[in-house]
Formats: sequence, C-alpha cells, structure tokens
Amino acid sequence: MSAPAPHFEKKLRAGVLGATGLVGQRLVSLLAHHPWFELTEVAASERSSGKTYADAVRWHLDAPIPAAARDLIVRSLAPTLECDFVFSALDSSVAGGAEEDFASAGYPVVSNSKNHRMDPDVPLLIPEVNAAHLEAIPLQQKNRGYDTGFIVTNPNCSTAGLVLVLKPLAEAFGLEKIFVVTLQAMSGAGYPGVASLDIQGNVVPFISGEEEKMESEPQKLLGKWNGERFVDAGLGISAHCNRVPVLDGHLECVSLSLKKIASLEEVREALREFEVSSELAALPSALRNPIVVLEQQDRPQPRRDLNAGAGMAAVVGRVRECSLLDVKLTLLSHNLVRGAAGAALLNAELLAARGFLTRRVSADDGQSLAEPISR
Amino acid sequence: MSAPAPHFEKKLRAGVLGATGLVGQRLVSLLAHHPWFELTEVAASERSSGKTYADAVRWHLDAPIPAAARDLIVRSLAPTLECDFVFSALDSSVAGGAEEDFASAGYPVVSNSKNHRMDPDVPLLIPEVNAAHLEAIPLQQKNRGYDTGFIVTNPNCSTAGLVLVLKPLAEAFGLEKIFVVTLQAMSGAGYPGVASLDIQGNVVPFISGEEEKMESEPQKLLGKWNGERFVDAGLGISAHCNRVPVLDGHLECVSLSLKKIASLEEVREALREFEVSSELAALPSALRNPIVVLEQQDRPQPRRDLNAGAGMAAVVGRVRECSLLDVKLTLLSHNLVRGAAGAALLNAELLAARGFLTRRVSADDGQSLAEPISR
Amino acid sequence: MSAPAPHFEKKLRAGVLGATGLVGQRLVSLLAHHPWFELTEVAASERSSGKTYADAVRWHLDAPIPAAARDLIVRSLAPTLECDFVFSALDSSVAGGAEEDFASAGYPVVSNSKNHRMDPDVPLLIPEVNAAHLEAIPLQQKNRGYDTGFIVTNPNCSTAGLVLVLKPLAEAFGLEKIFVVTLQAMSGAGYPGVASLDIQGNVVPFISGEEEKMESEPQKLLGKWNGERFVDAGLGISAHCNRVPVLDGHLECVSLSLKKIASLEEVREALREFEVSSELAALPSALRNPIVVLEQQDRPQPRRDLNAGAGMAAVVGRVRECSLLDVKLTLLSHNLVRGAAGAALLNAELLAARGFLTRRVSADDGQSLAEPISR
Amino acid sequence: MSAPAPHFEKKLRAGVLGATGLVGQRLVSLLAHHPWFELTEVAASERSSGKTYADAVRWHLDAPIPAAARDLIVRSLAPTLECDFVFSALDSSVAGGAEEDFASAGYPVVSNSKNHRMDPDVPLLIPEVNAAHLEAIPLQQKNRGYDTGFIVTNPNCSTAGLVLVLKPLAEAFGLEKIFVVTLQAMSGAGYPGVASLDIQGNVVPFISGEEEKMESEPQKLLGKWNGERFVDAGLGISAHCNRVPVLDGHLECVSLSLKKIASLEEVREALREFEVSSELAALPSALRNPIVVLEQQDRPQPRRDLNAGAGMAAVVGRVRECSLLDVKLTLLSHNLVRGAAGAALLNAELLAARGFLTRRVSADDGQSLAEPISR
Repeated sequence: MSAPAPHFEKKLRAGVLGATGLVGQRLVSLLAHHPWFELTEVAASERSSGKTYADAVRWHLDAPIPAAARDLIVRSLAPTLECDFVFSALDSSVAGGAEEDFASAGYPVVSNSKNHRMDPDVPLLIPEVNAAHLEAIPLQQKNRGYDTGFIVTNPNCSTAGLVLVLKPLAEAFGLEKIFVVTLQAMSGAGYPGVASLDIQGNVVPFISGEEEKMESEPQKLLGKWNGERFVDAGLGISAHCNRVPVLDGHLECVSLSLKKIASLEEVREALREFEVSSELAALPSALRNPIVVLEQQDRPQPRRDLNAGAGMAAVVGRVRECSLLDVKLTLLSHNLVRGAAGAALLNAELLAARGFLTRRVSADDGQSLAEPISR
Repeated sequence: MSAPAPHFEKKLRAGVLGATGLVGQRLVSLLAHHPWFELTEVAASERSSGKTYADAVRWHLDAPIPAAARDLIVRSLAPTLECDFVFSALDSSVAGGAEEDFASAGYPVVSNSKNHRMDPDVPLLIPEVNAAHLEAIPLQQKNRGYDTGFIVTNPNCSTAGLVLVLKPLAEAFGLEKIFVVTLQAMSGAGYPGVASLDIQGNVVPFISGEEEKMESEPQKLLGKWNGERFVDAGLGISAHCNRVPVLDGHLECVSLSLKKIASLEEVREALREFEVSSELAALPSALRNPIVVLEQQDRPQPRRDLNAGAGMAAVVGRVRECSLLDVKLTLLSHNLVRGAAGAALLNAELLAARGFLTRRVSADDGQSLAEPISR
Repeated sequence: MSAPAPHFEKKLRAGVLGATGLVGQRLVSLLAHHPWFELTEVAASERSSGKTYADAVRWHLDAPIPAAARDLIVRSLAPTLECDFVFSALDSSVAGGAEEDFASAGYPVVSNSKNHRMDPDVPLLIPEVNAAHLEAIPLQQKNRGYDTGFIVTNPNCSTAGLVLVLKPLAEAFGLEKIFVVTLQAMSGAGYPGVASLDIQGNVVPFISGEEEKMESEPQKLLGKWNGERFVDAGLGISAHCNRVPVLDGHLECVSLSLKKIASLEEVREALREFEVSSELAALPSALRNPIVVLEQQDRPQPRRDLNAGAGMAAVVGRVRECSLLDVKLTLLSHNLVRGAAGAALLNAELLAARGFLTRRVSADDGQSLAEPISR
Repeated sequence: MSAPAPHFEKKLRAGVLGATGLVGQRLVSLLAHHPWFELTEVAASERSSGKTYADAVRWHLDAPIPAAARDLIVRSLAPTLECDFVFSALDSSVAGGAEEDFASAGYPVVSNSKNHRMDPDVPLLIPEVNAAHLEAIPLQQKNRGYDTGFIVTNPNCSTAGLVLVLKPLAEAFGLEKIFVVTLQAMSGAGYPGVASLDIQGNVVPFISGEEEKMESEPQKLLGKWNGERFVDAGLGISAHCNRVPVLDGHLECVSLSLKKIASLEEVREALREFEVSSELAALPSALRNPIVVLEQQDRPQPRRDLNAGAGMAAVVGRVRECSLLDVKLTLLSHNLVRGAAGAALLNAELLAARGFLTRRVSADDGQSLAEPISR
C-alpha cells in the first residue's frame, strides 16, 4: 500500500532558472498542472530578461506553452525571485555560480546542471536509487554557511536511465563491471545544438565530457553516504558515447557482470519487479515500477518506446548472455524527462515530501513560513 | 618495393551471381574497368533472368550502369555460364546450394554469402589478415570431389572492418578480449531492406544473426590453418549490433585487451603503420596501408569518412584508454565495399595472383586453358 | 447550439477490412473507445486470417493494441462477418470486388480505398464539405440491386486536407483555379512502403496516380448531386506530388484564384471562422472549427502541427498574396487521420446520425433489427 | 567547333572573401586545380583573420582542404589583398559595403551575395542566359567612379537552376507565367544553419526573403540590357519556398505557360538540345549542354542526380501537361555549385575570357599589368 501523499496547505512556489532552454521548457510544461508546485517565476540569461516568457522562448514541445507561464516576465539570474525553491536548468557556463548564489540566499536549488554533481557534500539524486543521500544536506548547509538553501542535483541524461536499470541488479546480485555504449538523441545537446549538416544521415562518435560523466556519476549514485562523505560504489565502468540522428531518447547497449550467479530469467524478473517504496510511489511523478521489460527482440527503439511511463520509465529489452561478462541488454530512457526535467521534478517531490521545501516569507506580503504538513 | 603484378595474356572472365542486388551492383561497377577481370555473365533469380541487365536491375549507385554490363542477358543460376569464375552475391536463402553447384561444375566461387563461411574446409578470407588460409583449398576439393572448382568466402560486413583493425594489434601485442557495439548502415540490409517507417529518426537494436557472426567469424579469421583444419583464435568477443539511419558505412565502438602492455601511442602506431606484403600491395584493389588513423576527436563519421581508400580502408579514431580493458577505439568501414563487394574482389585478385583462377575451355571456341603467368 | 447526438440502444458493431495495414490499425485504434461503434470483426488477406489480431498485425502506433482487438480472430474477406457495417481499408488490388461483395450481402461499406471513389453513384464524402451527396445512396442501391448495403468513400489523403480548406473559400468567394504542390509523408505509402534507401535525405518527385486523384476528386467533392448524378465543380486544378522524408502529415503549397475579390484578412477570417453545422458538430470525431489558422511565418510544419484537433484539423499558415493567382497558403493535414482512418470514421458517424447504419439481424441471436433512434 | 580558350601568360590571382563559409569552401576547392585562376588570398570576418586557413575553417567537403589553401593566412576584409580579382561569398550582413570597398580599390568583384544583385548598374549573370548583360560594366564604373574595379553577381541558389531551364524555353516558345514550389536543401542555409531539431523528419515552409528573390531575379536575368538600364522580362512568377531534410540539391516543381504552342516532345527537345555558344563552351567550368533531361518518372531526385555535370547541370524530369498552364516539370540543381560557387566561378571565367580580368600591379614586384591575350 502506498503511503499517503504529503499535504500542503498551499502549493509551493517554484522558479525555473534557464527556463527558455529545452530542459527549462520541459520543466515549465511539467509544472503546468502539478498538484504540489506552482510555477511563479522564470529566469534566464540577460538576453531574455524583461520579456514575457511567450516572447522570450522558442517553444519546442507539441503541447502549447502553459497559459500560466505565457505572461510571466523573464527575470535575470539574481537570487531575488518570488518563489520557495528553484529548479536550475542553466547552461553549465553559468550554473555553478548562479546556483551557489541562490542557495546562499536561502533557496533550495534542484539542479539539472553538471557543475555541482560531484561535489563532496551535494547529493546526486535518483529517488529510486539513493534517496538516503539527502542526509548530506545538513552537512552541506553547515560547510557552506547556507541557511535554508542547499543544492541537490540529478545525473546526466545518459547516466539516469543506466543507473535506474543497474539499481535492482546491484541489490539482487551485486554488480562488478559495466560496459556501456550510448546512441544519444540530438535534443541532448539543447537548441540549436547539433547542426543538421553534421548529423543528417550520420553518427558523431563523440560527445564532450559525456564518457567521463558516465564513468564517474554511477559510482556516486550507487555508492553510500556514510554520514560524512559519499563512498563510491567501486564499479568498473567503461563508456563510449555517440550522437545519432534521433530526436529524443537515449539508447544504451550494456554488458555487465554480476557478483552472484543469476539466470537470464532471474535478471529479467529483478528488473520487471523492481518496485519503489510506498513513500516514493506517492510522489506525483513516480512510477511504482519504473523499469519496463520488453520481450520483442528488436525493442526498445527510441521513436517507439520513448514515452513509456510518461517518459519516466527505463525500458529494457534484449536481455541475453554476454560471452565476456554475464549479461547483455539494451535500455532506453527519455533524455529530457527521466534524464533531465522529470528527474529534477521527482527530486523536488521527494524533497517536498521529506519537508526540505517550505514556503518562504514573501517580500511583499510579509507572511511567515507556512510549513508543509507532511507525514 | 612491390612485387610485380601477375600478367595475364587475356583478362579472366567473371560472372556475378546475384548481380541485381546491392552487393551485386557494386561488383558489376567495380569490374567495369578492372585490369585483370572482365565481366561476361550476370545471373540472378528466376524473376530477372532473360532480361537485359539494365532492364532487370534497380540501379542504386551514383555512377551509371557500366556500358559493358547494360546489355548482358541475365542468366538463371544454372552452372553453365561463359566465365572462368564467379562471384556470389546471392541471398543466403539460395546461396548455399547454388555455390556448391558452381563449384561442382568446376567454377571457382568467390562468395560474399554467409552460408559456407564457417565450413571446416572453406577459407574465410581477408587477404591482409589470413592469406595462408588459401592452403585449405586442395583439401576442400578433395573432400567434396571438386575438380577445378572451390569456394572461398569473405566475412560479414561488420566483421570485415573489425578484423582488419584487430590484425596489426594481434600481431604486435596479442589480443585477448574484444567488446564491440556496431552502428550499422541501412544498406547492409539490401534493397528494399529496411522500411523507412522503421528507421527514420530511430535506431533498431537488433540485426538477425549479426551478433553471432561477429562473435564467431573473427575466431576463424584470426586463427590458423594447421594443414588439416582451422584453429580458432581463442578470443573472447562480445558484440551488440544496431541499425541506424545512415546510408552506407558501419561504425563500431570497440574496447579490447592486449596480451602485452602497450601505450596508446604504440597502438596508434601499430595501426597507422600496418603495411601489407608486396604480394598484396600489387593487387589492383589493395591499399598498401589499409588502416587510416584520424586524430580529430569526433571522427570517424560514416558520412564523412566512408570513402577513405576508395572504400577499402578501415578508418580508426578516438584511440584512448579503457577503464575495463586496455584500449577503446572507434572504427568505420564501408559495408558494401570493404565489407562486401570490394572484399570479394580483393579475394579474387589474391586467388588470381596465386594461380587459383585460370581460363576455362570455352564451349564455343574449344581453346585450351590459358594459364596465368604469375610470379 | 449543437444538435443532440443520436441515441443508440446498443452500439453498432463495426468490422474493419484490411485491419492489419496502417490505415486499418488507425481505425482499430480510433474504435477502441468509440461512443457509438464497437469493433467486433477484423478481416484481412488470406495470409493473416485465422490468427489473432495481435499475432497478425505489425503494430505501428505509439499506444498499444486496444485490449478489445488483441484477441479478435482475423477473418478472410468473405462477407459473412458479425457486424452491422464495415470499414474498408483494403489495398486497391482487392478493394474493388470485396467492397461490392459486402454491399451486395447487405453491409454498408465505409471505404478509404480509391476503387469506387469516382463511381457515378457512389458518394465521395467529407461531411464538412458535401454531406448532401449521401442522397445518392438510394439510387446506388437501386442501380446495383443492393438491399441494405451500399458504398460510401472518403477521398485520397492529400485531397482531404486540401478540399476541407477550399470549402469555406468556395462558399465565401467562389473558386476558380488551384495550383497545389504536395510534400507527402512516408506513411502515405503504407508499410513497408517506401524503402529507407530511397527516401533518406532525399525527395521522390512522383507518387503513382496521386496527381490524377488530386485533380479529379475535388471536382466531385466540391460539386453537387443533382438528384441523378454528381455535377463537377468545374475548377481548374493542377497538382504536383512529392514524397519527403517525414513520418506523418502531408504539407501542401497552394495558390488559388477567387471569383470575388477578397482581402487576405477576409480569407484568413473565412478559414478561421469556418464552423460546421450543429448536426456535424454532434458527431464524436468532428471539430466545430476544423480549420486552424496559424500566424507564425514558418508554420505549419508536419512534425509540429500534425496533431491539431486530434489529427482531424487542417492547419493553414502563410496566407499571403500570389502574384499569378490571388492567394498563396500552406496547409497541413494528418494523412492517416483526416486523410484516411479519421475520414472514414467521421463518414460512418454521419451515416449513423442519418440512420443509414442499423443493427443487422445477428445469425446467432436471431434478433430483429434495432433501429437507431436519431433526431 | 569550340572557340579557342583564352590564353594567359600567368594564371590570374584570385582572392576569396568569406572563404570559411560553405560557399567559400566550395570556391577554394574548385580553384584548387583551375587552369586559369590561382588562389592567393583568403579573407573572412575578424574572428578568423590571422589564422591559417586550415585552422580557421570547419571543412565540410568530402575531399580534403587543397594543399595550396591550407597555409594561406586568413586576411581581414580590407581591400589590400594580393590578387587580381576577388570572389565574394560573404554573408549579406557585411557583403554590401565590403564589395563596394573592393570595387573602389580597383578589384573586380565576382559576388555570390544578394546585396547588389538588383542594383540598376550591376549585372546579375548566368553566362548561358544573359552574357550580354556584361555590357553594363562600363556604365557601372562610370556611375560609381570605379576605375578597374566593378561588381558582377550571380543569382540566388534556387533562381539559378530555374532560370537556366527557362532560358531555352523562352527562346524557343516565349514564356508567360511561371509557378514554382521549391524543396530546398539544408546546406542552402550555410553552417551551422538549420538546427537538426528543426528539420529532422520535418519540412519548414518558409525561407526568409527567398520567394521575393525568386520572383524578382528571373525578371532581370531573362530581361535585356538596353544600353542604359536593365529591362525586365515581364514574366508572371509565383514562388513558394520550403526547406526539406536533404543535404544538398534544390528540387523545384514548375508549371509554366508558353507564348507559342508546343508539344511536350518539343519542350523536352528544346531542353535537351540547349547548347551554349562556342565562346562559353570553352570556359573551363561550362557544360556544352547544361540541361540534362531524364526519362524515368520518379527523377530527378536530390541525392541521386545532384552531381550531374559535376554539379553544373540543371536536371529536368517529369515534363508533362499542366491543366492550368501549359507544361509541368520538375528540376534539380546543386545549390552550392550551380547555385553558388560554380556560378561565381563560371562568371569569373566569362569575365576573364572577355578581358575584364587583368593582372594587377603587385605591390611587391612592381610589375606592370599583364594583359590576358584572348580572342
């Protein structure tokens, strides 16, 4: 049975930093009818600030710009927004400092940017994988002199799906080595991102910094917080990253070795039956079973399986023997949802459920903090 | 210095079985101005036979149908062609029996089809890799009661580029394990092959039988002929195969371990300086240095590097450390040239140079065999 | 105000002929939760018959096969189905005879196939355009000796969107000449349809029979039924048809001349304010305003505007002056919905609303016909 | 018989302004082995100047950067280059002023930019179409106070192929109205140009300024120079322009009306037999028959017919009746060759042949002008 959802007297007010980019747009869209959060501020680089959101954004989603966002005035990145916490979908060239400024000014920062992911006191969080890492927040606040503010991050878009799939295998059988080759979608590079002349009918076998992230982030995600620091998972990981002419959806070919002998059917079962805790299942964006296992031999495919679980599932197929390690499989996840905007949103939901997000005193109404009533 | 090329009084007459398919078309095209061979016969399935080649073929190459081929009458697959040897680019559904029929009838068969590749007495040949395997031909002829006929095969299109790159590494450092993920072009599936609705903006993570071929064929290619049988190379190989929306050119992400410690620079040098023997360098379709090593971090790319060495080179880039095995690299080869038609042609050239191809008595001129004068 | 919807005691039972093709799949999908119709039979060519629908179909839609359809046994094309009417999404090679057989056997046939579209006694129907053409049905039945059966057709996929857009212009200003160049999606050719090697990074400036259909069908659609025969609209129409590498959605560049002088703003207004009758607005698949007019200068675009009005809208943009005729515009419609399955479904809904579809006596329950109670 | 080619004692020295862009790269490539011209200078915007060409350029062609260009130092746009004339492939944001500066400083400017195309004293030139327009140069020099300098331009990439095809029809039959819809390649927008997220599996039915150019430039090209000014051709032209996901090659669907009645076969013949004068045929980049007429019903196709005549041909297919005007046809031309770099080069060749290009006194050798000896 699922735990009762936390109850808020009022919705928490969310700001989105970097709201005009591809990930920012997804956040704005996902927040449109969110039961706990309300979008009250959008912020972006100087070029856009002062315009309405509708004027500033080059909108890329199929659904139209949410009505509640159209007329918001785009703010600059100064930490003076009317909101209770911020999402950061900023480009890494500015995210580092801006996120620290917001945290210093008292804002919880739920970031999709890479800058602070590997900081020794910043949780790199996938709720289904390492919710316990949130215990690092008080130390982070103490270290950095933050008051109510802090930074929590989600992993790189290609790491997100991989680690979600590795989690139940690590639990059930123990993991040793992971080979992974990615076939990543164009939207992972943002907009305008990849030039059509570079990728049409082509593959680019290089994405700057991506292999390094895929080889380091899973160590932290699958590792432990020991009360003082994050302890790496000690896995062997080797990654090759490629860009392919696909709109959305990162496909990954994975070979892995297990500590405990397992049959292919046991592996499929561990994946298929991976179920989150009732605390997590109660989060609005969570799936009770976040891994979908397909039986057809030619799936998952990016264009066809992208939206499983509203983009929050990892879709696994072709579980078979590996002649070098133990198991081969193919996995797919939506790089902009599970790998970015949806990941940040789920992180914020977990933070809210655990009482890390609270209503801030609003400058113009002088009200006191309204604590969320969560159980 | 390169050995003198063999000298033929007259060009050898070649037939192409399966001449209307994509690989057959490439063969017809490559034979158009060949210094040693002359295309005299084209054969195909019943549907096409009796038409002129120009009428029967749906031509896919940029260059027009060679004038010498346009008006050839397409023959059925009966082994009664006016030629000295045949190339087989037949579909595997008919190649097995047809190739045996031709070999029984005295024709050397230079095959691109998979059917006989792993037969214990049939050479699976890449001249730069295992020319010594031709020594199996006499035993094959004895075993099967063939007189002047025999079968020689080239590997699968994705195996060809891989093994060419592995060869100098095996020689210089010894090979142990190979992990390979392919991103294969659509033309590898023939025509009409992959439906546009399946591959547009998509990846299909499955190619029937491909992973099995990539895990078995290199064992034979990099193994030895011991006078009686082929001895496997004993490598550990794990392959994942994907179809991507690229016209031509198979890209492969490879991690491998070496028996002998080597620096990345030594690996690059072994690849770059891989040079064929003077016997091979004298073959019309051979490259003296069949491996091209690129330094740019985002290459090779299928659309941009496909035609290196007129499609006969393997192009290697991104040679770097692997955190699980020793070396990571990316390689590209042209699936229809180095991986099919060019591979078969090079095999035929080596056979000719070594005296395995001779002029057959022609029914209509009753002349005796004209032996090639090779040195 | 919209007319009350017809009320049926029981849902009408629908069969789908050609249920395994792309259009058939769309029909099966659209029927899944239809308020008036229930899918009870699927039929296809011999190859599929006898299998369950789930086994016989290569499913192409994002949403899964509807539960109610999965286990239906695929029937042959014999007119002995347990249903009250049939949709025909058959290939034109078999549609002609099969549709006549069903009509002769008493089944109303709602066809997407081209075979009978231009028959002098068969309505070619777009409800928003020429609902009065249904008056031809009694004469058709008399001519052909049909009892309760008849045939009604919808236009070609590229004609459908065009004529829907022409209708309000014809009404408001009168039409004279129409130039149209199409950029048609790959799915218009069915599955497997266009080979990826033909269309990747390419345009094919020819679609067999398409220009002829686009030049003739609008004449009938925009013409009149005079009680005895269809009178052509007498338009001048010139069409060029191209296939482009787009999944779904036909884009059309149109120039046209009007009988009455109109400003561009009047043209936009006539399109934007085109509103269907209350009878039509009550049909489940109808849009009250089936034409969407976009203001952005670079729209409509197939990938971004395809699903306007759940695929039943025609989307118009770039209304501007034409230096040869009067007006230029660009339009887009979903070739599989507005241009095929949705078109047939809307036709069936109009037929049902007007009492042309009734419950047939079921062989196994012997009940009498249950007349729909429509107003 | 073709006229003897002009003879130059030394090659003319050419500079390329905007040498790092897509068109500039094509020019650099085409100049590599040119019989009359030698590339001595490359110039570009401030960002690139001072670097070697190899360092400054992101090279897009299959063939490598010509050896002679690799080490040229990229100059700024100051008119102090060591060369006898310049090609301008500059962006229109800077081309206007820069070209005037070079002309004022005495350099003949052979421009691909749009800025001066419609100037009343600047020839807009396609040698096969309106070579007589060069007679405007003396008046231009007088008007503008240019000494040896002047500006000659080539048309927009989509106009070039169209007008080349219209020319023989205008001559043989007279032209009245032209309706044209383009399907234009991505490379027409330069690099990085069109974002992959905008064009993958999509069509963009708008190209800024393109329809205006296509409706005005042909009037000048097919019109006359009357000794004082250019007189428009007085054609009715209506253009719709679209961007499609094709790398190179603009396809155009054309309907046109003729002043004189002609059969389709006469139209095909006029196109097929269009032959340039012997003066033109002697130019290195000219084709004697610059129009190729294909008979297959589904050609021309961009990917397959792009390189006809080394990219300098216009390829025509599907010549058929138009129910509104007289003739429909489809044409294709290479937007970067016939539509840009090749067009400018051919213009320069005609200028050289007619004595408009001469060797300038070189600052460092103080030699006098070496007149080309042309006949």
